[in-house]
Amino acid sequence: MRDTWISEVSSKEGEEVTIAGWLKDVKKIGKLCFLIVHDSTGTIQCKCEDKPNVRKESAIVVKGKVVKDERAPGGYELAVESVDVVGEACCPPPFPRKGDVSLAVRLDNRVFDMRREEVQAVLRIRSALLTEFRTFFASKGFVELTAPVLIPSASEGGAEVFRVDYFDKPAFLAQSPQLYKQLAVISGMDNVFVTMPVFRAERHDGPAHINEIYQMDVECAFADDDDVVSLLKHAITHMLNAVKQTKRHELEVLGVKLDVPEVKEITYDDAVDLLSKHVDIEWGADFSREMENKLCQLLGTDLVVVRRYPTAIRAFYSMPCDDKHCKSFDLLYKGVEISSGAQRIHDYNLLKKVMEEREMDERQFTAYLEAFKLGAPPHAGWSMGLDRITMLVCGLQNIREAIPFPRDKNRLMP
Amino acid sequence: MRDTWISEVSSKEGEEVTIAGWLKDVKKIGKLCFLIVHDSTGTIQCKCEDKPNVRKESAIVVKGKVVKDERAPGGYELAVESVDVVGEACCPPPFPRKGDVSLAVRLDNRVFDMRREEVQAVLRIRSALLTEFRTFFASKGFVELTAPVLIPSASEGGAEVFRVDYFDKPAFLAQSPQLYKQLAVISGMDNVFVTMPVFRAERHDGPAHINEIYQMDVECAFADDDDVVSLLKHAITHMLNAVKQTKRHELEVLGVKLDVPEVKEITYDDAVDLLSKHVDIEWGADFSREMENKLCQLLGTDLVVVRRYPTAIRAFYSMPCDDKHCKSFDLLYKGVEISSGAQRIHDYNLLKKVMEEREMDERQFTAYLEAFKLGAPPHAGWSMGLDRITMLVCGLQNIREAIPFPRDKNRLMP
Repeated sequence: MRDTWISEVSSKEGEEVTIAGWLKDVKKIGKLCFLIVHDSTGTIQCKCEDKPNVRKESAIVVKGKVVKDERAPGGYELAVESVDVVGEACCPPPFPRKGDVSLAVRLDNRVFDMRREEVQAVLRIRSALLTEFRTFFASKGFVELTAPVLIPSASEGGAEVFRVDYFDKPAFLAQSPQLYKQLAVISGMDNVFVTMPVFRAERHDGPAHINEIYQMDVECAFADDDDVVSLLKHAITHMLNAVKQTKRHELEVLGVKLDVPEVKEITYDDAVDLLSKHVDIEWGADFSREMENKLCQLLGTDLVVVRRYPTAIRAFYSMPCDDKHCKSFDLLYKGVEISSGAQRIHDYNLLKKVMEEREMDERQFTAYLEAFKLGAPPHAGWSMGLDRITMLVCGLQNIREAIPFPRDKNRLMP
Repeated sequence: MRDTWISEVSSKEGEEVTIAGWLKDVKKIGKLCFLIVHDSTGTIQCKCEDKPNVRKESAIVVKGKVVKDERAPGGYELAVESVDVVGEACCPPPFPRKGDVSLAVRLDNRVFDMRREEVQAVLRIRSALLTEFRTFFASKGFVELTAPVLIPSASEGGAEVFRVDYFDKPAFLAQSPQLYKQLAVISGMDNVFVTMPVFRAERHDGPAHINEIYQMDVECAFADDDDVVSLLKHAITHMLNAVKQTKRHELEVLGVKLDVPEVKEITYDDAVDLLSKHVDIEWGADFSREMENKLCQLLGTDLVVVRRYPTAIRAFYSMPCDDKHCKSFDLLYKGVEISSGAQRIHDYNLLKKVMEEREMDERQFTAYLEAFKLGAPPHAGWSMGLDRITMLVCGLQNIREAIPFPRDKNRLMP
């Protein structure tokens, strides 16, 4: 129906084009009428002799000649030959396009909300981050693994898992592809990545909490924590640089200046020493959001990898490096944890011992444990939260804004 | 730990390299001992003076000099300097690498099964098909949409949906991103694609049935069925051509000669006429697997688009083109439906009327229906099943073989 995207109009001066989009606004100036039309690539002014009979927000197809005019926003307009209303809006919009609207009202009317330029910019940046994650690892020969969502037991031994009625038996929704990416690596696939929705049945309902999360995972065979921390630093730098270059327009719409900070590393112990001069912290505790923020501030960068956490506060499969620490790490971006990983225990006997010490129910992990008898190489990996990175890159206050159709304790609609 | 992939060894004659992989086999010939080692890129023979003390299938790191030797498979071998056992196999493999094993035993021991070259070839081809689908649409400016898995009601009105305990309320697992991709298009995102797992609570348990399915979806604004059938033909041709070019080795391992057939189109009515000369068929019925097969045979190609099915046997949102037919279509590949799509109804009143005629419960579709009041453009799209295409490309008999960790009525493990 269209032969030209609105972003291409300016390159077709004097030509007759057909655009398609939504009627954002109508302005009457003297005898003339101006239609402001947008598609996903931009906005254009269309000049008519007569005001067409069409409601705002309708889907229209406009045919016209491209005219250079300095008075038009963007410097070009269409001299309209015909306006075809192909999808009439049959009610007024739920709220004005511009101006303050509460997030709850926005999300209740998400389809209309997504018609706003800022929201589309966020969703395009989200899409780009995901693409660039995959591109980075595919270019390094990693294979994409599709891990199951339906699993027989809680993936990491956590309690906060959703239960499914699976043919009169219980099944659960994956909290992470963790165990499956490890199985794939042990199976000889060497290096894999996974991008998938995961589910946490947490009852929190704050601005940083949602229950369906989009996660990006990596796992490497014959690798230790040094190897995958190095990959992590390169991956995040690539992703931010790529968005900075390819999503200029979207960042501009959001008024965001995207920096790609230097990545600094610090051990957990050094971080505790450093923080203890400023806040009340004891060795062995996990960092609060405020401490993570402070740490980035003290190190003078927005990207910090904290390494070698106390074993007691990390997942059971983290490889110990001494009697107190393990080869685990977190990546903080703008003071928020966006990635978490570790070298994993690959020795069957050690894994069994650790699970016993933590009083885990081994029967829930039979298939996982058995795999470590088959010749498991040293391996390491991490996962990254797409929703959080999108929120931070776009400078949003609530993670729900970073997701097309967010899910929380109280929201399953639309 | 490794500095060289096994596939790179032949380019490093005379150099000292370190490889890492799994011990596939050990052969003693006279005083010499040969270790057959594989990683995800290939297999190499390593020559030792003494037989190292290591079980088959262990994960090992081998250091040695690359030597050209015509007697070695592939023409090169490693003259071993050291063998480091980094992950000892502590039990014998569950079944021999070569030879006939039932699919049930293979899937029960999927981690070991995936160590076999043929299985890895399938999973790499699967990964490539998914990548090429995304690459094709990203290059055309489509935005990736992540649609929710957790939804408030059955996505297409079907009964075969899994129920989740969602904070003491019911939620359901998406059967498709259908309604959400339509909402995104109506919201002004124009052209979107989605790749995600979907869930069908069907009780069938045949070789073509699974309950967690990986689906690839496309939806376009200001488009009709002609537009998206054209996209479909280009997309499938691109995907098959790309796999043919980039996965030569994997296709060879599987003994598959991949053809990229011409895509032919036929209307449902013409297909019924044609088939009725050979089989017992009446207008209005859906095609059986046998009929789809016969149709491809009669048209002399492995890719057939059947268009304009009877409205009564298609989804409610299919746009009618006359009183009996609608603008829907299926793509058959090797006699199997791998894609299904349609131009959708975009008019609120028509959609409401159709839902009433089908006696659908409108309350389950409130958010969906409301969106059509906001100026919905004509739109069209389709979805494609990754598991099925992978099965057909690889010449497999059972769809479970095309999936890393398949889920069916009786299988949630590993």
